Amino acid sequence: MTHTPRARDIGLRFEGATGRHNAITDVPGLTVGFSTVIEEARDGVHRGLCTGVTAILPRGESGSITPVWAGVHSLNGNGELTGSHHIRDLGWFMGPVMLTNTHSVGIVSHAVLGWMIDRYRDVFDTDHLWCLPVVGETYDGVLNDINARAVTEEHARAALDAAAAGPVAEGNVGGGAGMIAYEFKGGTGTASRQIAVAGNSYTLGVLVQANHGTRAWLEISGVPVGREMGGDLVFGRDQGSIIVVIATDAPLLPHQLDRLARRGGIGIGRNGTKGGHSSGDIFLAFSTANPQDNPWNAPDLMELNALKDTHLDLFYAAVVQATEEAVVNAMIAATDRVAVKPAGKTVRAIDHDRLREILRANGREV
Amino acid sequence: MTHTPRARDIGLRFEGATGRHNAITDVPGLTVGFSTVIEEARDGVHRGLCTGVTAILPRGESGSITPVWAGVHSLNGNGELTGSHHIRDLGWFMGPVMLTNTHSVGIVSHAVLGWMIDRYRDVFDTDHLWCLPVVGETYDGVLNDINARAVTEEHARAALDAAAAGPVAEGNVGGGAGMIAYEFKGGTGTASRQIAVAGNSYTLGVLVQANHGTRAWLEISGVPVGREMGGDLVFGRDQGSIIVVIATDAPLLPHQLDRLARRGGIGIGRNGTKGGHSSGDIFLAFSTANPQDNPWNAPDLMELNALKDTHLDLFYAAVVQATEEAVVNAMIAATDRVAVKPAGKTVRAIDHDRLREILRANGREV
Amino acid sequence: MTHTPRARDIGLRFEGATGRHNAITDVPGLTVGFSTVIEEARDGVHRGLCTGVTAILPRGESGSITPVWAGVHSLNGNGELTGSHHIRDLGWFMGPVMLTNTHSVGIVSHAVLGWMIDRYRDVFDTDHLWCLPVVGETYDGVLNDINARAVTEEHARAALDAAAAGPVAEGNVGGGAGMIAYEFKGGTGTASRQIAVAGNSYTLGVLVQANHGTRAWLEISGVPVGREMGGDLVFGRDQGSIIVVIATDAPLLPHQLDRLARRGGIGIGRNGTKGGHSSGDIFLAFSTANPQDNPWNAPDLMELNALKDTHLDLFYAAVVQATEEAVVNAMIAATDRVAVKPAGKTVRAIDHDRLREILRANGREV
Amino acid sequence: MTHTPRARDIGLRFEGATGRHNAITDVPGLTVGFSTVIEEARDGVHRGLCTGVTAILPRGESGSITPVWAGVHSLNGNGELTGSHHIRDLGWFMGPVMLTNTHSVGIVSHAVLGWMIDRYRDVFDTDHLWCLPVVGETYDGVLNDINARAVTEEHARAALDAAAAGPVAEGNVGGGAGMIAYEFKGGTGTASRQIAVAGNSYTLGVLVQANHGTRAWLEISGVPVGREMGGDLVFGRDQGSIIVVIATDAPLLPHQLDRLARRGGIGIGRNGTKGGHSSGDIFLAFSTANPQDNPWNAPDLMELNALKDTHLDLFYAAVVQATEEAVVNAMIAATDRVAVKPAGKTVRAIDHDRLREILRANGREV
Repeated sequence: MTHTPRARDIGLRFEGATGRHNAITDVPGLTVGFSTVIEEARDGVHRGLCTGVTAILPRGESGSITPVWAGVHSLNGNGELTGSHHIRDLGWFMGPVMLTNTHSVGIVSHAVLGWMIDRYRDVFDTDHLWCLPVVGETYDGVLNDINARAVTEEHARAALDAAAAGPVAEGNVGGGAGMIAYEFKGGTGTASRQIAVAGNSYTLGVLVQANHGTRAWLEISGVPVGREMGGDLVFGRDQGSIIVVIATDAPLLPHQLDRLARRGGIGIGRNGTKGGHSSGDIFLAFSTANPQDNPWNAPDLMELNALKDTHLDLFYAAVVQATEEAVVNAMIAATDRVAVKPAGKTVRAIDHDRLREILRANGREV
Repeated sequence: MTHTPRARDIGLRFEGATGRHNAITDVPGLTVGFSTVIEEARDGVHRGLCTGVTAILPRGESGSITPVWAGVHSLNGNGELTGSHHIRDLGWFMGPVMLTNTHSVGIVSHAVLGWMIDRYRDVFDTDHLWCLPVVGETYDGVLNDINARAVTEEHARAALDAAAAGPVAEGNVGGGAGMIAYEFKGGTGTASRQIAVAGNSYTLGVLVQANHGTRAWLEISGVPVGREMGGDLVFGRDQGSIIVVIATDAPLLPHQLDRLARRGGIGIGRNGTKGGHSSGDIFLAFSTANPQDNPWNAPDLMELNALKDTHLDLFYAAVVQATEEAVVNAMIAATDRVAVKPAGKTVRAIDHDRLREILRANGREV
Repeated sequence: MTHTPRARDIGLRFEGATGRHNAITDVPGLTVGFSTVIEEARDGVHRGLCTGVTAILPRGESGSITPVWAGVHSLNGNGELTGSHHIRDLGWFMGPVMLTNTHSVGIVSHAVLGWMIDRYRDVFDTDHLWCLPVVGETYDGVLNDINARAVTEEHARAALDAAAAGPVAEGNVGGGAGMIAYEFKGGTGTASRQIAVAGNSYTLGVLVQANHGTRAWLEISGVPVGREMGGDLVFGRDQGSIIVVIATDAPLLPHQLDRLARRGGIGIGRNGTKGGHSSGDIFLAFSTANPQDNPWNAPDLMELNALKDTHLDLFYAAVVQATEEAVVNAMIAATDRVAVKPAGKTVRAIDHDRLREILRANGREV
Repeated sequence: MTHTPRARDIGLRFEGATGRHNAITDVPGLTVGFSTVIEEARDGVHRGLCTGVTAILPRGESGSITPVWAGVHSLNGNGELTGSHHIRDLGWFMGPVMLTNTHSVGIVSHAVLGWMIDRYRDVFDTDHLWCLPVVGETYDGVLNDINARAVTEEHARAALDAAAAGPVAEGNVGGGAGMIAYEFKGGTGTASRQIAVAGNSYTLGVLVQANHGTRAWLEISGVPVGREMGGDLVFGRDQGSIIVVIATDAPLLPHQLDRLARRGGIGIGRNGTKGGHSSGDIFLAFSTANPQDNPWNAPDLMELNALKDTHLDLFYAAVVQATEEAVVNAMIAATDRVAVKPAGKTVRAIDHDRLREILRANGREV
């Protein structure tokens, strides 16, 4: 993995104690993999690709289909996160969480299902087990010929097979390859927080695919930097989406995870977005605690632990902080990319030096 | 308690094994109390009252504010069940469930709060404890001068103080006093089911305040009896509401209780209602299992049990069966009542003999 | 289209006035197409296919992407209807509604997207238009080697291209090919109702993909026939799902369509289901009225009509009646099919003569 | 009305163009009234009162019960907004919006109902009209002997009768009298924005009852001022709630108003709150456009206008901006108040000079 700069690398500061990698992979057992599809335009016909797939395996290569407890919230539903009916009702999902572009949701869903069947064929062959994949998306049609539907089953499987623990690539990678955030180049970002409560320490990690916001809205560290970085606009209006995936190892029940998911909106709001109409702002929260084997084989009477409600504030703060940082990380790691529609326009990554200069001018130590 | 006839007393049959009293009070510890307010019209000024209050104490006179886990569903929101924001988010409520007429929700809420403060004054005085009462309603303005707002704090306290285990009064009693169901006299009804699962036996009880449906829609035991009992119509359209309260001692999580609550709609549908626009059809489900002291004093890490999902079908069937039976019980126990608006019109109770005759003619053993 | 018998053909009676074809296609402009995939088991390796795709085009071959206003409700979320985030939030969707098996949702979504891009390439090429397909599913793994993922893009396109107005095939056809309802052979069913209100006549049509219920639960015309038709059980428990698609030309706003969708639960409940845990019972309601061009080109200030609330009861009754009839139509039209898992077991269609006999014995005129 | 300072009076800056009074009353026809109940502790028995009632009349003294279209969102449901079932389902409410303390919701609901019946007695007497009041609350038990339940029907009627257009009192007034925000004295705040779209100008106004947040979280103008104003803490944890009422004269449908309501969370998040567990963060949005007489008398076919979706971003920005400003206005206008529990502790209003000093030190022009 090539190291791309992160927000803290250039001096930005955030609240809260991070996990080891300051990444969603700090949640024990969780792995992340990417498949990035970049092809330059050529021949006047091939318009160019800049897209990909991100795979989050809540329990990594555990070799089992043990679900995770989960909750979901849609701040703005102009987007998709398949599997949400199941999560909302049953409070859990099994298998990976996949992120890709809007027009690849179907093929990635098809692919991850195939991968699940291959991997757990004995269970699928024996029982009547069905799988409703969890696939989210954001739109990359500015930088990617999205209507070519170029993402394949193989791309999705490559992301799944590449999943690993440890540091996580950011910026123009995986599902985030072709994304645009606040009219700068956006993409994949991550962050994590450690939470000490009642004698235990828990981890909460966030991964975002950031493709939302207008320049005029952009705030970093509470400073409305967007107003002073007015060049190279893309649309002048919000177009895109953000998916926020929140993972934790803390024992939380589905309705508590719903509550965590709802705080995603406060988190993304801290960088200035208003949750624009064209943005599908959808938040998923899951917990790897309280594993129950697969739901068909769960014990008749499951035993679960759950943190009491008054401890949730620590987790809400962690969601907000890690979401804010993950969005900034996505933008800091991203690099310039030339558009396919309108062809030839360059979508710039945010200028690190200029950003630091503005922050300093506004009293921030950077 | 005067014994009023129940559906089974006149030969009707229902599926499933009932609890001892075939009542919501079969859930261990749960008590129910009523306060009925009947005054005849007089003087050409006093229009007449026929209303009341029903109190359901999930844990009876336990002397503690230990909440119950809960879920709620609104099939049709043209009604009220206060406390629902809290239940939907936190998954529990504390204190009684109160049912009354539409225009007494406020005063009953005020009353139950006073009762809670009096009863648990040490906790309210010591901590910053707040109480968001759970109060449901249906409209009795045909049989009761509802705009007189005649229900008082004392009436509500009387219902709370009268709460007892054992058999439960039905028909024209408590909050159900002035209700109309399928254009027959309606009111309060209850039923229960025993559920054997994984070596344990659980109880699920239902109490309804039935004030919904048009005559043409009415079906009993699958027979469209309403079409053949066309006399003494009230409106010829659906006006009113039904509140369904579902209680169980089975260990179920809040999101599982939400799922139970949603089956209330199938239950009421079995008697023919379509969930008319003017009807507030709201369903509350709670479980007395997994008590956690009050939420401020719950252990940092709560331990809960939960039945696995595949056992829920037994509870769904119990909700549907007990809801259907409770609605019929409400109608069978009810007695004629003269309306205040339009004044002088009599709302008839369903004729037991005629009902049995029609059922027999349709092949039902009664 | 081969004519298969319908419930009314064998003498069953239902309430309400039907449209011309008693089918969802009675909604003006709406078309339905099927692609059915049947392959017998062979070689001891190929396990056999019995599946397919159903396409509902709300505006038929209109040549435009004009959306329809819509609402959605999930009684039981153990299923999928992609596009629901969008519908819940924006109140509309564009493009077809597709129904298929659980493990073909992804490929069908991919296919319908390709079909949309091909068809409306000028719009997709000019604007940044994205499409979030609406794809529902039910599980056919008993009669179909579902894990072979045999449905292809071509199958889905074939269903789309076959869409037509007029009579609609039922039973073992399209997405409904391999379905099982109440442990009899299930499948695709449809029905419609005419609604006269305020001087206008509107049509409401329903199409179901019925794959739900246990035999013991089955009721037809209010008679618990399942108990007397106890042979040839499949599971003895609910496994499967039902998708109910409700279409109308009446002018209703998104929140009114949500309310229509919720009545789907009452409709399916009339045949005895309790909405079992393993069943994804999801209901979609849409209106072709108030067309607004595509949402990017809608006028700044849209003008809409909406029926007043008190007229909704007529539509609720129509939803309940047409849903009940569509489920029975699916079962009456279906034919026996041999299972792939457990291999060799025959899933029987309901015996028409025996059904009529039981209904007659229970006082029903058939 | 005594003039209390507002955020802009002390030099704070906010985005967006305000209405004339920078208040919710900028929405034409809308009026606001307050009833404030202040009694000092005495005799060692009377603990002291600091509470009240706020009345928002969407259509002012219009003399009719014409409802407003509405939507509601609960970011955190540890609170109450009665009437929400009705709003969520029917998309409208009639009558005032009332705000008070947590333990006065019942009596205020009872009072507003009485006021409605008195005012529209002819309608209530003629038709079967019911009223489900919209009453929100936040907890003032630190500064007010909330368990004395001292708010009366007369207090609520006084707020209703005092409702007026024009400037709106802020800080320790009405329902906001005893509130605490970010551990400073909180209370009532308001702000408005003008929105020009498609040749028309619309107004969006917000009124908050702010009683939420911890000091450590507090940010103003993007500066984390709370960290530098660490004295006189109250709890060190979030306890309380915030109700955000959003009013507009723009023609928006109920599902669009739901979307507006959801942006309340982004708005309050801008001052640093994480939506703490003990906080009931509930947002109501309504539109006075598209009046339809009372719903019983609405035309059979209502005619409505609705702004197209892509214009909503302007309204989302207005919600976020006006909510942020209203919260700050509540704090700037508030004045010190001595607590009743713990007795004698003073809850300080935020120090204007110190605030400006910190903002200036962080590069803000104040």
